[in-house]
Amino acid sequence: MCSRPEPPEPLRRVAVVGGTHGNEMSGVCLARYWLRAPGELQRPSFSAVPVLANPAATAACRRYVDCDLNRAFTSAFLTARAHPDDPYEVTRARELNQLLGPKASGQAFDFVLDLHNTTASMGTCLVAESSHDVFAMHLCHHLQLQSPELPCRVFLYQLPGEESYSVHSVAKSGLGLELGPQPQGVLRADLLARMRALVAAALDFIQLFNQGTAFPAFEMEAYRKVSSVDFPRTETGDLAGTVHPQLQDRDFEPLRPGAPIFQMFGGKDVLYEGESTVYPVFINEAAYYEKGIAFFQTEKLTFSVPALPGLAPAPSPAP
Amino acid sequence: MCSRPEPPEPLRRVAVVGGTHGNEMSGVCLARYWLRAPGELQRPSFSAVPVLANPAATAACRRYVDCDLNRAFTSAFLTARAHPDDPYEVTRARELNQLLGPKASGQAFDFVLDLHNTTASMGTCLVAESSHDVFAMHLCHHLQLQSPELPCRVFLYQLPGEESYSVHSVAKSGLGLELGPQPQGVLRADLLARMRALVAAALDFIQLFNQGTAFPAFEMEAYRKVSSVDFPRTETGDLAGTVHPQLQDRDFEPLRPGAPIFQMFGGKDVLYEGESTVYPVFINEAAYYEKGIAFFQTEKLTFSVPALPGLAPAPSPAP
Repeated sequence: MCSRPEPPEPLRRVAVVGGTHGNEMSGVCLARYWLRAPGELQRPSFSAVPVLANPAATAACRRYVDCDLNRAFTSAFLTARAHPDDPYEVTRARELNQLLGPKASGQAFDFVLDLHNTTASMGTCLVAESSHDVFAMHLCHHLQLQSPELPCRVFLYQLPGEESYSVHSVAKSGLGLELGPQPQGVLRADLLARMRALVAAALDFIQLFNQGTAFPAFEMEAYRKVSSVDFPRTETGDLAGTVHPQLQDRDFEPLRPGAPIFQMFGGKDVLYEGESTVYPVFINEAAYYEKGIAFFQTEKLTFSVPALPGLAPAPSPAP
Repeated sequence: MCSRPEPPEPLRRVAVVGGTHGNEMSGVCLARYWLRAPGELQRPSFSAVPVLANPAATAACRRYVDCDLNRAFTSAFLTARAHPDDPYEVTRARELNQLLGPKASGQAFDFVLDLHNTTASMGTCLVAESSHDVFAMHLCHHLQLQSPELPCRVFLYQLPGEESYSVHSVAKSGLGLELGPQPQGVLRADLLARMRALVAAALDFIQLFNQGTAFPAFEMEAYRKVSSVDFPRTETGDLAGTVHPQLQDRDFEPLRPGAPIFQMFGGKDVLYEGESTVYPVFINEAAYYEKGIAFFQTEKLTFSVPALPGLAPAPSPAP
């Protein structure tokens, strides 16, 4: 993701994307609803475009048809010559790159908000590539201040040296919303209302920025991905145990050396053998079994985010 | 399902089936584990056979490949001439009918226990076709007495005049275990332990019966399916609303006329317009969206289950 250009300009081209994963129902249903009733995404200075990212997977109520769309926005996929045998999601990533990008270009959308659900007990989680996107960090801070009684954590998912691959990486700035727990294929009213309120608050923030509001510097707390841990498995790859009840539903809580992480079907516990405390996230996410991920280990960090200056007032139109 | 024959005989042929739905992970993982370590299913008078019912759907972590296996055990499917274009699950139903049946024959297995999960907040639910299977009702009562502190409801799913269609209907007697909430594709340690304990208690009950134990008559409370209710939908069939937060997670609780059942995306509530109190179950089950079922309406009933007489002692073997 390229940072927003300097000098800052108002954000006019904004998209709200649902159904990047076709069985994550909050975003699927909101995108479909907004496509019929887009007024909710209008603000005085801009209108966000609703996008249903993966219509085929959504119709089948599956995460994807051929491969994970939210890993397909790499330069290798986006720049390769199209072929009739390309996976559906690679073709779709190129279409979305034309619609919302091209990635890393001046023509790209100013901001993309991408809506996700997880089966993990993540509550409200804001997903950014890294802490370098100052605009996204300010938006996260704004969302955290909207409902201070509800935890609203920031997860930084990009590993050092890793290329960006998510749908929101095609825009100049972007953020994922990850709400859970919600089973795949299920729409819960409570999570739907929460996601809808977050989207509204995000659009309100962009409106404030476009109006010239300046935002002061602040200290941000976030969880940065370090590595992943697979389930215990048999020689043939089947599960040999499951997430320990003492770890289940404890996303973002400290995991200390010696604490149990898995319960083997044979009865034994598997303990966390790391040397330092980590903060597991995406614990027992359904879609990650096939990826060999029982949970991510993150480190908790605090960093300073510089002020976001207010835009210069637009020149008055010529008389 | 045919009732167990008179005079009663010990149950020697018992099966525990997992993976009838390939993304309901408690049964999938237990069946796979028991196939490697069958000792847990042994009792002095019999050994239960572990069966992975739908290997293709299990490998794909989907409910089914072509059609719902747990609706495929009808005489139309089981007796039709096999054809290469038959749905995978119809072919598999015939194979399971050969293994565990044939349905309604004297050669059929004595008992089949079928392991399921739901995304609904059903807790521990015992699923029987009807109250006429006296042996199954006694087993339900036995399981309820094992953990009186945990609700353990009985759901009677067969509508009047409806042919039996489930995998356990091929045996002389059978029961489904339905544990939730658990997302599709996720294995939770708490539900796994609960299911494993229920299976053990069920096998212990059969062992007691085989040993000659008699069981007295009792009064049973159960929830009998009356009808189903679909989600509100647009003209094109998309969801137009979701289960109301006041109904979500309230399985088995009374729903009274005038109470809200759905929340429309446009904001309005939909109220329950029935004339009498019902007891919703399978509220917001992921697999039922495509079947047009937001929840089942049940009626709560109490009935008498006659005593289960003890078996006559087996004649001593000839010297």
